[in-house]
Amino acid sequence: MLVGALVGVSTKPGATTPVAAAALDRFVTGVLVAIGAQPDQAASVARVLVDADLRGVDSHGVARLPAYVRLIDLGFLDLDAVPVVERRDGATALIDARNGLGQPAGELAMAEACDLAAELGVGWAVAHHSNHFGVVGYYTRLATERGLVSFAGTNSAAVVAPTRAAGRFIGTNPLAFGAPSADGPGISLDMSTSAAAGGKLEKAIREEGPIPEGWAITPEGEHTTDPARSIVAGGALLPLGGFEELGSHKGYGLALMVEVFSSVLGSGPYGPGVGPLTSSTPKAPADISHFFVAIDPGRFGPRDGFEQRVAALSDDLRSLPPADPTLPVLVPGDPEERCRTERLATGIPVDDGVLGALDELARRAGVAPVDRVTDRSTGGGSSHV
Amino acid sequence: MLVGALVGVSTKPGATTPVAAAALDRFVTGVLVAIGAQPDQAASVARVLVDADLRGVDSHGVARLPAYVRLIDLGFLDLDAVPVVERRDGATALIDARNGLGQPAGELAMAEACDLAAELGVGWAVAHHSNHFGVVGYYTRLATERGLVSFAGTNSAAVVAPTRAAGRFIGTNPLAFGAPSADGPGISLDMSTSAAAGGKLEKAIREEGPIPEGWAITPEGEHTTDPARSIVAGGALLPLGGFEELGSHKGYGLALMVEVFSSVLGSGPYGPGVGPLTSSTPKAPADISHFFVAIDPGRFGPRDGFEQRVAALSDDLRSLPPADPTLPVLVPGDPEERCRTERLATGIPVDDGVLGALDELARRAGVAPVDRVTDRSTGGGSSHV
Repeated sequence: MLVGALVGVSTKPGATTPVAAAALDRFVTGVLVAIGAQPDQAASVARVLVDADLRGVDSHGVARLPAYVRLIDLGFLDLDAVPVVERRDGATALIDARNGLGQPAGELAMAEACDLAAELGVGWAVAHHSNHFGVVGYYTRLATERGLVSFAGTNSAAVVAPTRAAGRFIGTNPLAFGAPSADGPGISLDMSTSAAAGGKLEKAIREEGPIPEGWAITPEGEHTTDPARSIVAGGALLPLGGFEELGSHKGYGLALMVEVFSSVLGSGPYGPGVGPLTSSTPKAPADISHFFVAIDPGRFGPRDGFEQRVAALSDDLRSLPPADPTLPVLVPGDPEERCRTERLATGIPVDDGVLGALDELARRAGVAPVDRVTDRSTGGGSSHV
Repeated sequence: MLVGALVGVSTKPGATTPVAAAALDRFVTGVLVAIGAQPDQAASVARVLVDADLRGVDSHGVARLPAYVRLIDLGFLDLDAVPVVERRDGATALIDARNGLGQPAGELAMAEACDLAAELGVGWAVAHHSNHFGVVGYYTRLATERGLVSFAGTNSAAVVAPTRAAGRFIGTNPLAFGAPSADGPGISLDMSTSAAAGGKLEKAIREEGPIPEGWAITPEGEHTTDPARSIVAGGALLPLGGFEELGSHKGYGLALMVEVFSSVLGSGPYGPGVGPLTSSTPKAPADISHFFVAIDPGRFGPRDGFEQRVAALSDDLRSLPPADPTLPVLVPGDPEERCRTERLATGIPVDDGVLGALDELARRAGVAPVDRVTDRSTGGGSSHV
């Protein structure tokens, strides 16, 4: 899902301006409603994007809005579409996103999976004909809030080279996993199945700095540490593992698993058949597929016992002696949770390039520009976001 | 699951002797029945182990039998135990392996998951109080044979260092994924969530050769390329990714996901609470947990359409231009399937050290030793194995 952002609004290392989460949320909702979205769908997009910004996943936050609007402008994303449950059968559900906004489809599909889990212990939902839906972890955290274990993922545009392949074929196909804890917000793993973290790669490209060997190859299929010679030049990202001797076939296999769980189950296109998600020159609808699984831990034993075991496991992990005393061992989701707490208090530092693009959207949509934080005391977003 | 084998029967680079799959199958069944196992349980263990040997996963084949017998001898594995379905609730099932052989518990649990998927579209089974059950992919392939999509995993003894930790805490926690195809045996991903492939690590230790940086750390938490200074000296394996900049926190997160899906759902111990699986000096039952998921693709659209899409995706992948023309792009399961075809024809090359240990077992159990292949024409196992 990340590489679309590489051709996004900002390509220079930029200064940032703090913006309250609530202000960003109002802004995103306002723009989408102004161009014709239904208020509840606009609110869904805003919730998911701003949550990513709060958690420090800036590449998947409001920076994506201009690309969404571009797709809508070009007729590749249907703002009038309302996602529907196309089929509900046993513990499964198939959601048709009808080429509308990805976030409302994602929220509907995960709600279906959770309802099925409440009824039958497990729910497996697939959404097809969808669009970019933000970070996968947002949806697993919805299940966590309901006391359910969760697992989700999405296919995406072809930017990763399968192990041994010379070029792009499969998406970064991120997956997420969540588990509620008796103590704190629970475990929240959210990862692409490629080696490179999206934000870090974008930063390296902006700063023209070297990237670690194992992230990407040139269009000729050779490893490189120069982002300009790899992804920017039409080369490919590499699967998690980076090198075959470090297990890149496992990262590739995981990407393939996500592909099967989403697009192959959902009869959607895969790899090169997927439209560009956030390209500056999209030529077709994205037509991506997602999957959402919820599991009721109470079917295997008492639910509170489960949440206590997650808490104990998390505590054990955080208490492990670190190799470097300045880098404590973390549980997946810890850094993002800490970032969220900070940014709720002091505002989200939005890249000025992104803010400029949002201002331009505001002018076009005829809405007020994003409220900047002008006083530290008003910097906090409200916790409802 | 792999590191127990590091202290296994053979520590020298050994010659091999070809053995027919059917002969190995008879031998494993014979030994287990002779020491008191029920015939159907013994047959289950033989099926799973010999299938691994046929597929080239020698570390998880008959080489494991002596360690199983050691656990039984020491009273840490209960040969009389019969696995039972402890709880069946909606689309979930909980299997109590009762500290018996892992393979019959695994076959029962995957059969439950498949039955639930046939009824409700999805089945999620957890087995607890179990023992080493061989390769995870064996169980997902059982679902593949029934036309179902599958996902499974197991926790295991603490030999992997979570990202940033100085020492061992979590298991190699392998996972597997399977999908049936209209053309061929389908996709079969079977991977540990650690960086190192078990067989390769064992080979490096035997040959005292260097290992790639990113596989393992010393007991002091430092990266090393010397197997003698890492895992052999009490150091730890590293999660898939190997280095934080190459995404080792993702491998760690996946190991944690497997842990939650198996032991935390199943109320079993995790990490250091798990007994050694195949150590030469076990001190407690393994008490490991597995999970098994089956999904009926027919709930999301026509089943034959699904299998055709898997075939098309697999063909697309195999047809990709490779970076190195001598290394074609593979689909997970391809190399193991090719190996199986070969070994069914020519026999399984069993390490002579392993054969010696099996001969010793034969003497103790009072059964005939393993039949060696003496004539190329009898080298083939029968295809029922």
